[in-house]
Amino acid sequence: MKSPLKIAIAGLGVVGTGTLQLLQRNAEVLAGRGGRRLAVEAVAARDRRKPRDADLSSARWFDDAVALAKDPGVDVVVELIGGADGVALELVKAALERGKHVVTANKALMAHHGTELARLAERKKVALAFEAAVAGGIPIVKTLREGLAANHIQRVYGILNGTSNFILTTMRETGRDFADVLAEAQKLGYAEADPSFDIDGVDAAHKLAILTSVAFGTEVNFKGVYIEGIRHVSALDIEYAGELGYRIKLLGVARPTAYGIEQRVHPCMVARTTPIAHVEGVFNAIMVEGDFSGRIMLEGRGAGAHPTASAVVADLLDIAAERWSPSFAIAASQLTARPASPMERHQGAYYIRLMVLDRPGVIADVAAALRDEQVSMEAMLQRARAPGETVPVVLTTHDTEEAAMQRALRRIGALTTVTEPPRMIRIENL
Amino acid sequence: MKSPLKIAIAGLGVVGTGTLQLLQRNAEVLAGRGGRRLAVEAVAARDRRKPRDADLSSARWFDDAVALAKDPGVDVVVELIGGADGVALELVKAALERGKHVVTANKALMAHHGTELARLAERKKVALAFEAAVAGGIPIVKTLREGLAANHIQRVYGILNGTSNFILTTMRETGRDFADVLAEAQKLGYAEADPSFDIDGVDAAHKLAILTSVAFGTEVNFKGVYIEGIRHVSALDIEYAGELGYRIKLLGVARPTAYGIEQRVHPCMVARTTPIAHVEGVFNAIMVEGDFSGRIMLEGRGAGAHPTASAVVADLLDIAAERWSPSFAIAASQLTARPASPMERHQGAYYIRLMVLDRPGVIADVAAALRDEQVSMEAMLQRARAPGETVPVVLTTHDTEEAAMQRALRRIGALTTVTEPPRMIRIENL
Repeated sequence: MKSPLKIAIAGLGVVGTGTLQLLQRNAEVLAGRGGRRLAVEAVAARDRRKPRDADLSSARWFDDAVALAKDPGVDVVVELIGGADGVALELVKAALERGKHVVTANKALMAHHGTELARLAERKKVALAFEAAVAGGIPIVKTLREGLAANHIQRVYGILNGTSNFILTTMRETGRDFADVLAEAQKLGYAEADPSFDIDGVDAAHKLAILTSVAFGTEVNFKGVYIEGIRHVSALDIEYAGELGYRIKLLGVARPTAYGIEQRVHPCMVARTTPIAHVEGVFNAIMVEGDFSGRIMLEGRGAGAHPTASAVVADLLDIAAERWSPSFAIAASQLTARPASPMERHQGAYYIRLMVLDRPGVIADVAAALRDEQVSMEAMLQRARAPGETVPVVLTTHDTEEAAMQRALRRIGALTTVTEPPRMIRIENL
Repeated sequence: MKSPLKIAIAGLGVVGTGTLQLLQRNAEVLAGRGGRRLAVEAVAARDRRKPRDADLSSARWFDDAVALAKDPGVDVVVELIGGADGVALELVKAALERGKHVVTANKALMAHHGTELARLAERKKVALAFEAAVAGGIPIVKTLREGLAANHIQRVYGILNGTSNFILTTMRETGRDFADVLAEAQKLGYAEADPSFDIDGVDAAHKLAILTSVAFGTEVNFKGVYIEGIRHVSALDIEYAGELGYRIKLLGVARPTAYGIEQRVHPCMVARTTPIAHVEGVFNAIMVEGDFSGRIMLEGRGAGAHPTASAVVADLLDIAAERWSPSFAIAASQLTARPASPMERHQGAYYIRLMVLDRPGVIADVAAALRDEQVSMEAMLQRARAPGETVPVVLTTHDTEEAAMQRALRRIGALTTVTEPPRMIRIENL
């Protein structure tokens, strides 16, 4: 058997501790599958005295994570500190510069600096691996990069944020409102005290930007992601979605269009008959549509110390066995800079909910606004009657261009009988 | 860029033709992801004049597939002939003996000779890859072997046969009987003229035996698979399953037990709330339970020319990029011969349907038979009443040992008030 792979771990929070636990508990099976032992030689964290549920006795301690990354006795540096810049970026660069492989779980770092870091790794002929950065324990990066590598990818989409999915699932199951369910998620530890990264779609957008590059061979373009979170999704919209045969999910979707690469994160209505509609609670799922494979779905736990550790160590095993691939499936020097397909050019169907005064002629005015923008209505629903009062009216459209839809919504919003800004949720045809 | 990978394809049926189409249509993206071109240098098939929807002009033709496998101008031989023995086995051995990599879609071959062939490949330091042998376009072999390699696998199970799943799905949706739906599946081309491999569970068992070895590091033990098909599943049982909150699926399940490795293929009742219950029609799905990853599901098309070609070419890309792993995740020489856990020792819950004379005391007799074998009843259902006539009675049990269940069934079957042999379907707790 070959000599052990010498590993340094920077960051000993929950994922770092989980990774140490995995490397210790499963050492024997790992040696069999990696063809050599995985040895943790060094660790770095802020507070040495903090109690941790893992044995650190055989590892050298560094207070300075960047110094750890430069240590000549180390083959691979595992970055588990987090953050798009700062220490994480510095230490990853330092490690790559010195010809060390890097494994990271840092989605923000890869979303912001992925191309540059992959090119640096390629020049130094080392691996930069980040399975753990996308969807925790689900091996979606490897699946896209290798398992489905024979395909032209036509679309990648998925539920990439467990917190948002937990909130939407609970809202549907209980009929409760967003703020109420968010508070519960925070109490259960499924949502952070500052939940904005999760519920405003930024976390999902980081992951989507990474997947897009692997799928389409493009430079990572986080700024090109259209992002809309779930704060505006109401209990009423969830109820109507059910009536119309849909469920509401926060999806990340990437696909090539005539204008470039479309990347978007926003609440979507998906038909209840589709597999992704049944992905509930904190679970994540990613669908890949390949020209030969057809549609493949992967589902599992998208976060948590243990699932994330599973992904970190899978990357380490690939490095141990010398079977790692280019970070984004093709040579980093070959990644192309394709334009972001603008959201105004998005083609799709829409769900619109209006609050209107229940008066003769209102629907005619709405229909005229749609007609004037060439938006074709598919269905209209007005359940409640309350003459002279405000009632909800819901409609869905056939496929149309986002720009036309937005213009129609401005016209509709300006009608005196429409008492609140119209609510719009895109429908994703799956 | 490195010199092209020289490929020979043996067998030009639907999968062979699909593979040629993929290699031609996606040549550019493949060169990018494999780091070199994939060049088909030679092909072999029985009938040269048969029209095929692929360009063969640049490939040398062999009538003799074994001669093709021995051709010195070839790096990889792709075996797409099929069959557990005969030409397929002969040509795979010939190729490996000569130090050529082998890619195969042949589940029967791998189920019967997998260990021996993997050891031969290992001695010759070449790849033996078979992603296409299990679940078509779903990259489950790579996922188990690499993506989830950090885990102790606790259970692998799945819907591994699309024909059976199509039949069971259609039976549930239409209420029709097995024979009727099988005839329709044959008309649609989803079932063969001789459907026994699919509906009697042999095809699923081949795939399960392969997955078991990858998951648990054991020699392939096809003979150790307990196999029961779907012929005896009736419309009535499907209806009762629905009433009890279950769906009936033909599952392959593998897990370690105190007695060895349990491998079984049989109809299962699975709770309607589980993800696998929603895998419908010709789709396949595999669930992997890892100690750190938790439960991961992969779903997609388990058969068909294009999905299978996607898997074949993914293996070719791994070989082109020199990132292939041992066939069954660990060194073939290290695969262990663990005993097959006997079915009599299986622990699980059961669904039983009896046809009984509707007479006082019948249920008491049945309950006594269960009690005498220490089988604990969970629920009992007798919907129809027809005094003196035959009516169905359905019951479910708590977890019990298969041997005790079988003894209880013999006692029950011997009761004079039980007019037909009891029907039993195992319940899988997921």
